[in-house]
Amino acid sequence: MKPEHLSAQIFAKRSCLCVGLDTDLSRIPAHLLQEKDPVFAFNREIIAATQEFAVAYKPNLAFYEALGPKGWESLQKTLELIPEDIMVIADAKRGDIGNTSRLYAQAFFEEMKVDAVTVAPYMGQDSVGPFLAFEDKWVFLLALTSNPGAADFQYMQEGEEALYQRVLRTAGKWSEDTPGHLGFVVGATRAEAMQEVRALAPNAWLLVPGVGAQGGDLHSVCQHGRTEEGGLLINSSRGIIYAGNDRNFGHAAEQAARALQEQMSPYFVS
Amino acid sequence: MKPEHLSAQIFAKRSCLCVGLDTDLSRIPAHLLQEKDPVFAFNREIIAATQEFAVAYKPNLAFYEALGPKGWESLQKTLELIPEDIMVIADAKRGDIGNTSRLYAQAFFEEMKVDAVTVAPYMGQDSVGPFLAFEDKWVFLLALTSNPGAADFQYMQEGEEALYQRVLRTAGKWSEDTPGHLGFVVGATRAEAMQEVRALAPNAWLLVPGVGAQGGDLHSVCQHGRTEEGGLLINSSRGIIYAGNDRNFGHAAEQAARALQEQMSPYFVS
Repeated sequence: MKPEHLSAQIFAKRSCLCVGLDTDLSRIPAHLLQEKDPVFAFNREIIAATQEFAVAYKPNLAFYEALGPKGWESLQKTLELIPEDIMVIADAKRGDIGNTSRLYAQAFFEEMKVDAVTVAPYMGQDSVGPFLAFEDKWVFLLALTSNPGAADFQYMQEGEEALYQRVLRTAGKWSEDTPGHLGFVVGATRAEAMQEVRALAPNAWLLVPGVGAQGGDLHSVCQHGRTEEGGLLINSSRGIIYAGNDRNFGHAAEQAARALQEQMSPYFVS
Repeated sequence: MKPEHLSAQIFAKRSCLCVGLDTDLSRIPAHLLQEKDPVFAFNREIIAATQEFAVAYKPNLAFYEALGPKGWESLQKTLELIPEDIMVIADAKRGDIGNTSRLYAQAFFEEMKVDAVTVAPYMGQDSVGPFLAFEDKWVFLLALTSNPGAADFQYMQEGEEALYQRVLRTAGKWSEDTPGHLGFVVGATRAEAMQEVRALAPNAWLLVPGVGAQGGDLHSVCQHGRTEEGGLLINSSRGIIYAGNDRNFGHAAEQAARALQEQMSPYFVS
């Protein structure tokens, strides 16, 4: 997907909503468990209910891998349902030595045909580069995550610079001459984080987890994070897909997605 | 697998060899491509030829994922062939927020039934903890990798401490009261690295990549890296499995594995 296509979606829908497909058999409505492929049945209804408001879907690979080969089939069938103009991000947090990352890139971009993948930065440039060799495919590289463990290493400080800042500064250059595009994962747990990130990566696309259905820091993220092209994808997973827990779960998901879109709307007027 | 069982294997075989199953359709002998499952046929012969010398096998998940669902089947069939007393390490380099890592742990330890998994440290304790909740299962956490990109972030320095050293020091405590075991991935590209690592993690189990069939730093790694329990797994992938490229590839792999075992042998005498 070209960046201008993503921008066009964002300003057409006045939304930068990414819906996380963290589909968990233990949390989906009970009536679906009678279906042949409950995960697919759930995703199908979630996608139908939310595609008016979403510019991206982000399946979390762990939820599918945990089901073995049939999880991969559920995922593959799910991906086929997502409209072409909506970005698909495989949340996989991969990253390995060059020859191995090349195979992961092949698995995601050629075999699964997703638009983007999340990648971990620990192993450096040669672990990320192979993902950037694919035309108009995307990497979202972990910079500042939204979990408690983010504090363990991401704020390690050399001189003026924290590790997550070094990732933003260093990796930002890795995609200068590549056919692929590089964005970052930046959590929204601290209000000031978005400003610090924009100081180092003013134009990068950011994938922002940790904004719940409750809207928490949504306004602050939009205000400080958006760019002229849009520049943001704000993810909500559980707040949308588990908004309801009965036969009306699709409608509940639609309402939750609409509520987020309405809050985003003033920030994405073309 | 209990640590004492791994130790027993190491001293019985006088070897800490881990054979990396990075099985690549473009590199296996041509005659195997006529088989129904060439990846499995290749692995079967490699395992038969090397199990006398190996204490662990390490399938690299990327190579199987790149083949889609049938890659998972090849892997599953391969794992069933590996004798119970030999450790199986899924080289996956996963790591995500707690609820997601829990699902990855489930995928590897319950669905695939491997003994160990490699994990990336960037997201901190709650991304690693769920893997340590499984009795006698193992995590090998990336500390110092052997690829060129290791230099991008792993040597970032706060005061006296580099990032990889902080990982060793901090994460070493995470498994103190867990049913699972925590080791580290430490590359062998710099001779002095092993001594630096042992200063911080004197008793931890180390998985060491980057030692080729040529034996490079093998002696130095064994000398400075081994502990009373063994404490080391030294991996060789391509140097063994692609030692030959014709119908005799199994024999060539056996010779390459034996050559490494012979070099390791003096260091593991009970």
